[in-house]
Amino acid sequence: MNKEHLDDLISYLKFPSVSTDSQYKENVRECAEWLSDKINLVGLESSIYQTAGHPIVVGRNKHSSDKPTVMIYGHYDVQPADPIDLWESPPFEPLIKEGKIYARGSTDNKGQNLAHLLGLGETISESGELPVNIIYLVEGEEEIGSPNLEPFLLEHKDELKCDVVAVSDTGMIGPGIGTFTYGLRGVACMEVKVIGPSKDLHSGVFGGAVANPCAAMSKMIASLHDLEGRVRVEGFYDKVKEIEDWEKAEWSKIQVDENETLNLTGSPDLFGEVGYSDNERRWSRPTAEINGIGGGYQGEGSKTVIASESFVKLSFRLVPDQDPEEILNLVKSHLDDHKPPGVRVEYEMGHSGKAYLMDPQSGYGLAAQKALKTTFDSDPALIREGGSIPIVQSFKDILGVDTLLLGLALPDCQIHSPNENFSIENFYDGIRLNRNLINEIGSAF
Amino acid sequence: MNKEHLDDLISYLKFPSVSTDSQYKENVRECAEWLSDKINLVGLESSIYQTAGHPIVVGRNKHSSDKPTVMIYGHYDVQPADPIDLWESPPFEPLIKEGKIYARGSTDNKGQNLAHLLGLGETISESGELPVNIIYLVEGEEEIGSPNLEPFLLEHKDELKCDVVAVSDTGMIGPGIGTFTYGLRGVACMEVKVIGPSKDLHSGVFGGAVANPCAAMSKMIASLHDLEGRVRVEGFYDKVKEIEDWEKAEWSKIQVDENETLNLTGSPDLFGEVGYSDNERRWSRPTAEINGIGGGYQGEGSKTVIASESFVKLSFRLVPDQDPEEILNLVKSHLDDHKPPGVRVEYEMGHSGKAYLMDPQSGYGLAAQKALKTTFDSDPALIREGGSIPIVQSFKDILGVDTLLLGLALPDCQIHSPNENFSIENFYDGIRLNRNLINEIGSAF
Repeated sequence: MNKEHLDDLISYLKFPSVSTDSQYKENVRECAEWLSDKINLVGLESSIYQTAGHPIVVGRNKHSSDKPTVMIYGHYDVQPADPIDLWESPPFEPLIKEGKIYARGSTDNKGQNLAHLLGLGETISESGELPVNIIYLVEGEEEIGSPNLEPFLLEHKDELKCDVVAVSDTGMIGPGIGTFTYGLRGVACMEVKVIGPSKDLHSGVFGGAVANPCAAMSKMIASLHDLEGRVRVEGFYDKVKEIEDWEKAEWSKIQVDENETLNLTGSPDLFGEVGYSDNERRWSRPTAEINGIGGGYQGEGSKTVIASESFVKLSFRLVPDQDPEEILNLVKSHLDDHKPPGVRVEYEMGHSGKAYLMDPQSGYGLAAQKALKTTFDSDPALIREGGSIPIVQSFKDILGVDTLLLGLALPDCQIHSPNENFSIENFYDGIRLNRNLINEIGSAF
Repeated sequence: MNKEHLDDLISYLKFPSVSTDSQYKENVRECAEWLSDKINLVGLESSIYQTAGHPIVVGRNKHSSDKPTVMIYGHYDVQPADPIDLWESPPFEPLIKEGKIYARGSTDNKGQNLAHLLGLGETISESGELPVNIIYLVEGEEEIGSPNLEPFLLEHKDELKCDVVAVSDTGMIGPGIGTFTYGLRGVACMEVKVIGPSKDLHSGVFGGAVANPCAAMSKMIASLHDLEGRVRVEGFYDKVKEIEDWEKAEWSKIQVDENETLNLTGSPDLFGEVGYSDNERRWSRPTAEINGIGGGYQGEGSKTVIASESFVKLSFRLVPDQDPEEILNLVKSHLDDHKPPGVRVEYEMGHSGKAYLMDPQSGYGLAAQKALKTTFDSDPALIREGGSIPIVQSFKDILGVDTLLLGLALPDCQIHSPNENFSIENFYDGIRLNRNLINEIGSAF
């Protein structure tokens, strides 16, 4: 284990490259520049591409027409660190403790994309060259839905032509168990504002005579689900592809114990759509989630007001073959239909991406499974995942290629939560996985 | 019009005496001391009483057994100023513009209780004495439900023995229209916390498998009302006293035009319990209001999390003969019954007070109406009000006396909202009203 690799990771994690919040714009740019320097140092040639948002960093070796071309995709931007007071160590001061490194972005996704880069570096320093053509592409807007990556792919389609994409931004079902993810849920986001009086009103003076935007919004939100965890929006399930029998069988073998999920989440109880197992609910069923809600008095004690407005941030996890835009429109119609009297509603549509599904028995799918088997010395698990990497569908649509999802995230890595961490063992396994993967692909194609 | 009176008001309004927020504790105390000095200056004798919370200030003249004793009650504490960015001038830097003085607390309640004090001062300087025994009592915790006033009344019951209480903390139905309020709604507050996972979770990874506290809370809140504005809590209306015919007749005469209420509130539409007029809804029907709601991501953009918990601040406006404690228990049972699976719920009961109703044709009621008629030169309007002054019921219960509510607040005074203001004409009318009131009571009893 090369100690310098860990030092590199620590440097990378110190940048608060929060893409959603404009106050971090300069930090995001500095992070891109650090990564670009690192790409050059390992022996690839780096370019930074400005976009309408945060920059995209691309590293390449010298391409040769007799080798397959592999694009490795990752992202250097991170989620916001809040709620900041629940972190046990500062989110941008990486801390190593009991075999893990704690920092925002450690697993999602800096630790994983850096492992690939360092794997490429090791191969180059040992062999002088790589067995494949590499396009190492790392963007800075994954956490806000990659608004500028698709335009970039379209604009640079010829230079980005490749045979397959590899991404480590998904999970392993447990420590040391290589995991091949052949499907992802999509996502569609919207923010809804419910508007009542033009200013906060005294709830004694006016209570009972005007609609309360917080109460009206609650009625609208409450209408989204039935009591058995199903989404009640008309047409929401119309295009949902049912789970195949071999998937049900494969997933039931690796279904963790209910208590383990309870421990992992700290939830009082599991709760979800009736008729589906925990894995099925998370990997292959669509959801409607409230990500944030607010309105009225937020301070200490009480303030008897009727708020002027309230908001809810909604996101929908989608599965094949739901269409994000269609779903957002169905939801908007549903909410309009369930709007109580006396308030106005404004919608702002957010980022979205389709769900993704590939055939794990394809040539590249089998090469990926071999690399996993070599790295972890056992048959990999075949799963789908609940999270969304909308860009994977764009790779399919624009570049016409599948994406191999070879994740290194452990179930307790706390991505998007306080105390996010990355297993240091997985970091070094990731470096080896990269080396095995390009060897498998280089020899098979 | 004595210009010094207005200077006194400006000084009084400069104190940010926000009782609910502990960071203003020192400002609250300074405000009490200023008021105490003022009481001594007008010729009464002042005492400051420490309580478990903010101090109570009491001014008295020399009492004589052949005069009736009138207690004048008010409060020097104010609501928080937020949302601060909607104020057109700083809330604690009083601004005079177009016949109004703008500041937090200008109408509620500093302007009104100072008018009484200055009225007493004018009578003392002109006549050397007052025609009644006066107990001028101003507390610093009205906006947080007067938790220490009732204990104070009990402890000092003998010294506070009086024949009637007068309070100016209610509204006038329009400029220049003397208004006698013979009833108030009560209030009961609670905060509900809905608890799910032990930390915020990634809504892709876990969405669909655990309950979302924001969604669960919305279902609970949505269950509080039916679609026609009625509260659905079982037993909620059981003890509600129906409106009398003479009240319906009196109130329909002074019902303002719907457009006027829309202008005043800025609401898109009026909305309330079916079968009742606007005045009836606000003055004599109970409500369930959401005063604040929050949970999950509150920042810019999106963050796809399942929040660990959410909260709602609820208050209930009560009417005769609802019991606050009973109502809070009914609501708690109702919310427990409507709690979706997968979350825990915690309740914190807040302040509460019963509704109040007196007979406007009683001796003191008639004296008050005469004073209003002399001051405003026309018959006063007879109304109830939607707001709550729980202490008025305590005066009845502990001291055994009625409270005369002689409000000076205009409909557009924005109490509890940004840009609170007090009509300067009403300030001077309030001084005259005090003089007329103590003359009427002094000669009638």
